[in-house]
Amino acid sequence: MKGEAKVYLVGAGPGDPDLLTVKALRLLQAADVLVYDRLVSREILRLVPEAATRVCVGKAPGRHTLPQEEINRILVELAAPGRCVVRLKGGDPYVFGRGSEEALHLLAHGIGFEVVPGVTAATAVAAYAGIPLTHRGLARGVRFVTGHFRDDEALDWDWDKLAEAQTTLVFYMGLGRLDAICGHLVEAGMPAATPAAVIQHGTTVRQRRVLSDLAHLPADVRQAGLASPALIVIGAVVALAESLDWFGAQL
Amino acid sequence: MKGEAKVYLVGAGPGDPDLLTVKALRLLQAADVLVYDRLVSREILRLVPEAATRVCVGKAPGRHTLPQEEINRILVELAAPGRCVVRLKGGDPYVFGRGSEEALHLLAHGIGFEVVPGVTAATAVAAYAGIPLTHRGLARGVRFVTGHFRDDEALDWDWDKLAEAQTTLVFYMGLGRLDAICGHLVEAGMPAATPAAVIQHGTTVRQRRVLSDLAHLPADVRQAGLASPALIVIGAVVALAESLDWFGAQL
Repeated sequence: MKGEAKVYLVGAGPGDPDLLTVKALRLLQAADVLVYDRLVSREILRLVPEAATRVCVGKAPGRHTLPQEEINRILVELAAPGRCVVRLKGGDPYVFGRGSEEALHLLAHGIGFEVVPGVTAATAVAAYAGIPLTHRGLARGVRFVTGHFRDDEALDWDWDKLAEAQTTLVFYMGLGRLDAICGHLVEAGMPAATPAAVIQHGTTVRQRRVLSDLAHLPADVRQAGLASPALIVIGAVVALAESLDWFGAQL
Repeated sequence: MKGEAKVYLVGAGPGDPDLLTVKALRLLQAADVLVYDRLVSREILRLVPEAATRVCVGKAPGRHTLPQEEINRILVELAAPGRCVVRLKGGDPYVFGRGSEEALHLLAHGIGFEVVPGVTAATAVAAYAGIPLTHRGLARGVRFVTGHFRDDEALDWDWDKLAEAQTTLVFYMGLGRLDAICGHLVEAGMPAATPAAVIQHGTTVRQRRVLSDLAHLPADVRQAGLASPALIVIGAVVALAESLDWFGAQL
């Protein structure tokens, strides 16, 4: 529709610019305005034209960031007919990206939107770390969970339901609660020897991974000094990570 | 490494060629040999050079397809130093794609491999159908499950663990078992009024979606005549699909 103001809610993928989608790349190269999160890599930001307006809205754990309401307000303000506004998010806009909150807000203000799905961190970070999320005989399903709650909130997952054989668990934004996550899962009956990994800066040359098990993962990660952004992967499939380490072998 | 035979295990994404990754597109355009599944769309196959050798290895539910062992064997046979062999799979190679079985087989035969993650069907098909997989207050996690078992196999999921509030359920390849899936979930305590959808040919101009609830989804899908390939999405987030239908509005 000509003359309609529109915002593109675009997934930037997990970090490696090669994992942008064709549509995301095209929109970034055409952007007049870019509104982006901290998790978006510099390599990707470089694809945007010099002349484009850039607005960083933060979202690093523990640091000062704009409240979601403020981001929503900024998007409405920047949208205008004929202006290519790209709201760029790490991973996929609809997997822990709060893209749908922004979409609803835009709609409520008469602004159109399009979603450009991205490769979500769980699939790509795991694959680059040598871990398939499903594998016959080891995992026939996968579950993505957020480990991020407000500081005053307990991790109130139903741990009995999370502790399930043949289902790979992936925690986004969970590093700050790693001890609690591993402890709860073992209490809920998951074997302490269940293979488990933390991957920092996945899919990039700065990738670091710690392969361990539920009992030892928190200590091993502290020892290695890993920090956010990091992904936690738990399940039998992690045992394949040494054999299938195609990316680490190139680093 | 020069002179090393290598196979690229590439995710083709959910169907829309615009959702290929930049790396997948580059590899397809450089392919000497393409080994692909039925789920890969014609638009994407057209990107491969005319001169490339194409091997279709099937994988449509219920039809005759090559056994996995045969596919593994073909990949080993086709790999050669200096030859760009692309093993193209719908969605992501490591999410119900059996890519890791192929990777292990290649390794065992001294052949290198690289994984090129793709946008998995769950995220993109849902997004194009207006459904965010997570949304504050409605879903703080998502679970991908396969509904595909051998004909003589029961659907032996732990339904009590699947039936969880605030977790979106996505069934891949589950249409043939839709009655059983909905029935088991209600028996396990999930409200019969839980919003639920089936989407056929997601992300393409042939997209069709049925929005319903657990109690009525099987009958509604039969009524509409939807067929595989289709994705089942269950959870409170499905209630947003009417409001957030940006793609359907363009069709």
